[in-house]
Amino acid sequence: MLKKVLVANRGEIAVRIIRACKELNIETVAIYSEADSDALHVRLADEAYCIGPVSSRESYLNFTNIMSVATLTEVDGIHPGYGFLAENADFAEICDACNIAFIGPSPWAISQMGTKDVARTTMEKAGVPVVPGSKGVIETVEEGVEIAEGIGYPVIIKATAGGGGKGIRVAHSESELRKGISITQKEAQANFGNPGVYLEKYIEDFRHVEIQVLADNYGNVIHLGERDCTIQRRLQKLVEESPSPALDSSIREEMGQAAVKAAEAVDYTGAGTIEFIYDHNQKKFYFMEMNTRIQVEHPVTEMVTGIDLIKEQLLVASGEKLTYTQDEVTFTGWAIECRINAENPDKNFMPSPGKIEMYLPPGGYGVRIDSAAFPGYTITPYYDSMIAKVITYGKDREEAMAKMKRALDEFVIEGVHTTIPFHLRLFNHEVFVGGDFNTKFLETYSLLPEQD
Amino acid sequence: MLKKVLVANRGEIAVRIIRACKELNIETVAIYSEADSDALHVRLADEAYCIGPVSSRESYLNFTNIMSVATLTEVDGIHPGYGFLAENADFAEICDACNIAFIGPSPWAISQMGTKDVARTTMEKAGVPVVPGSKGVIETVEEGVEIAEGIGYPVIIKATAGGGGKGIRVAHSESELRKGISITQKEAQANFGNPGVYLEKYIEDFRHVEIQVLADNYGNVIHLGERDCTIQRRLQKLVEESPSPALDSSIREEMGQAAVKAAEAVDYTGAGTIEFIYDHNQKKFYFMEMNTRIQVEHPVTEMVTGIDLIKEQLLVASGEKLTYTQDEVTFTGWAIECRINAENPDKNFMPSPGKIEMYLPPGGYGVRIDSAAFPGYTITPYYDSMIAKVITYGKDREEAMAKMKRALDEFVIEGVHTTIPFHLRLFNHEVFVGGDFNTKFLETYSLLPEQD
Repeated sequence: MLKKVLVANRGEIAVRIIRACKELNIETVAIYSEADSDALHVRLADEAYCIGPVSSRESYLNFTNIMSVATLTEVDGIHPGYGFLAENADFAEICDACNIAFIGPSPWAISQMGTKDVARTTMEKAGVPVVPGSKGVIETVEEGVEIAEGIGYPVIIKATAGGGGKGIRVAHSESELRKGISITQKEAQANFGNPGVYLEKYIEDFRHVEIQVLADNYGNVIHLGERDCTIQRRLQKLVEESPSPALDSSIREEMGQAAVKAAEAVDYTGAGTIEFIYDHNQKKFYFMEMNTRIQVEHPVTEMVTGIDLIKEQLLVASGEKLTYTQDEVTFTGWAIECRINAENPDKNFMPSPGKIEMYLPPGGYGVRIDSAAFPGYTITPYYDSMIAKVITYGKDREEAMAKMKRALDEFVIEGVHTTIPFHLRLFNHEVFVGGDFNTKFLETYSLLPEQD
Repeated sequence: MLKKVLVANRGEIAVRIIRACKELNIETVAIYSEADSDALHVRLADEAYCIGPVSSRESYLNFTNIMSVATLTEVDGIHPGYGFLAENADFAEICDACNIAFIGPSPWAISQMGTKDVARTTMEKAGVPVVPGSKGVIETVEEGVEIAEGIGYPVIIKATAGGGGKGIRVAHSESELRKGISITQKEAQANFGNPGVYLEKYIEDFRHVEIQVLADNYGNVIHLGERDCTIQRRLQKLVEESPSPALDSSIREEMGQAAVKAAEAVDYTGAGTIEFIYDHNQKKFYFMEMNTRIQVEHPVTEMVTGIDLIKEQLLVASGEKLTYTQDEVTFTGWAIECRINAENPDKNFMPSPGKIEMYLPPGGYGVRIDSAAFPGYTITPYYDSMIAKVITYGKDREEAMAKMKRALDEFVIEGVHTTIPFHLRLFNHEVFVGGDFNTKFLETYSLLPEQD
């Protein structure tokens, strides 16, 4: 079993990982930038080291400094969390070279899935449904136009190095496509250092449904059911739930099996997520991408399965077998997560950094709070704006929603704007409550006060 | 269904009840004494009314003022919580007379169980095992001496109007018995207005194990398994867990059935608890008393069964049937509760009232906090000293204990002494961890720093 783990992240996910380590008697080492010296993850870890100035590039993305701390503190594992270095194959390789377990899949699996057109091809070969589109990266604009004519507009242009909603552009016509390809290529070069783009048929009316998988080093791969992340704003998830109100049991089963095939195709190990486009009209699903890391929304799966995903990651990285076989995975109740951000939902979700003067998270039965906030904590403008994840669990969707409303209602955060009022409006909106909606929900209903 | 409920209590249980009401769309009315005008239950309720000065007798026990608020606000139910009026048959009768549902059993059931010697006789008739002892209240000291000689010393002298660890005295010899009877009678007269005492064989080496029952108005009675409350200090529970590490499945089943019989014997309705003395050497259990109310430690049962006890109380009081049959009750995982009090565990648990300057409850997976505290909240000396209940849930006792340790470790409460250091020492004590101990644990191991 791992003895000492460096947590190469900050915020709530660093706290989440430290908690799991403590419960497994694993020592923890935190790292932090100069902006985070008072952060909760720094206080909770057994040891903590400053690894650079506020800039992520010079701190949380700084391979050299992070590996120096890892070596000096003699850790035997590094957990990257999500974001930052979590899907960086080079970093995973450096860990391997230093004989430190990277708590995630192999560098090869990361790059197979991180290069979106390669992933698409691999999935197609493995028998996982993919959206009709180009065979790999397109070489010229003309090639793109030809493919688009074949599959029909609208199409979506995707940077092969993108992901998480970045490096994506929709084209409804040839002229939009021509412009879109070159802009997306330029942006992809600037953002990801790789200008490659590929095309897919754009499915407009769909739900975002993803499957959590777990795999060990002994060939065991299981899935833990789905998360529905259809409520998004500009491709950023705001609310996630498990199960999905849109799946029936046969689709759920098919999707789970497809996810296992996807993971097997890249010899996956650890925790990962296969994201699918779910065409709820046709009851068909298509591979979107794989996130080769723990996700923000992992708690909803934990609540309905009773399986601690971070602990499973740590066990797998320790060389243990998975704790559960597929047959031992059971699903009970309903879980929903709201991401509470320091943003003003009435002003286009404008970031609202600042000091949290008063902070009192909700409690009681069926309410879980994953957060790194505390009274007096300052949300800086340098990193993401998340304050807390509120996860509620009930015997059915109705109870989970009722718990979410009362939890949001009693959550006290003073000093910054938060997205709580937005979430309260969402949970009182009859279309959301009804459960039948698609990813354009927020384009259709603005959820501003006194509207809709 | 009830539409509007007055919560005749304060602190964490008032908050707990208000939360359940909100989740069921029931309006809430809080009451408060002059000491509690800033309290959380006051802030969370839809309406709140001051019903008297700090003295409990003039506020939280003040029938007249409470019923005035109930009538004026037109509530259709009153939830008494625990303590205060929860087991007051007269108050329950007044509610009935005012056509307001008392959220608890009938006045008759309360008094049957509240009069301890009557309860004992009723249980004996119903076939529930009782400890050998006197048939009802003893009339004279001589009668007591005779009975004690029959059953053998040590014996326990119990005030028939006592309960919750009050009005109880052990006698190891005739002289102790003679003194004990008259002192206990005098104290009982002074404290409960009823001098009656009865005798029982004193079982020294036992565990406190209790069974949660639920009953509706249609004759359905179910049990929800046991809670082990063996860790006590001066008969006050400090830690509770479910399941009990001491029961095997056949004893568990027997005890559950005995509890159902006990509830049936008094036509019980709502949530109640049958407390048993469990003689773990002989694997025999004996009726101790019934608490005809929700208990402080109810959350551990909720965690392992998934059944919301307060909601069931509200449903039953609304005239609904129980949501679950006995066959539908399943038990999963392990839950432990620690009561965190404003007391100094290193100075004989001396109360430590004062202002909580900094407050940050632990969060994350498997941690539930039931509390009415917040940053800036003042723990007054007038009522109980509870700050929060920390409930952890894991797949087994080991995981629940590991979660408790990390949760206690990260709980920030500044400004008052708390019992957190005591609990941390307990959860690191090998005898507690081993699970084999009796109610004298804290007499045997003082759990002071640098001892044991």
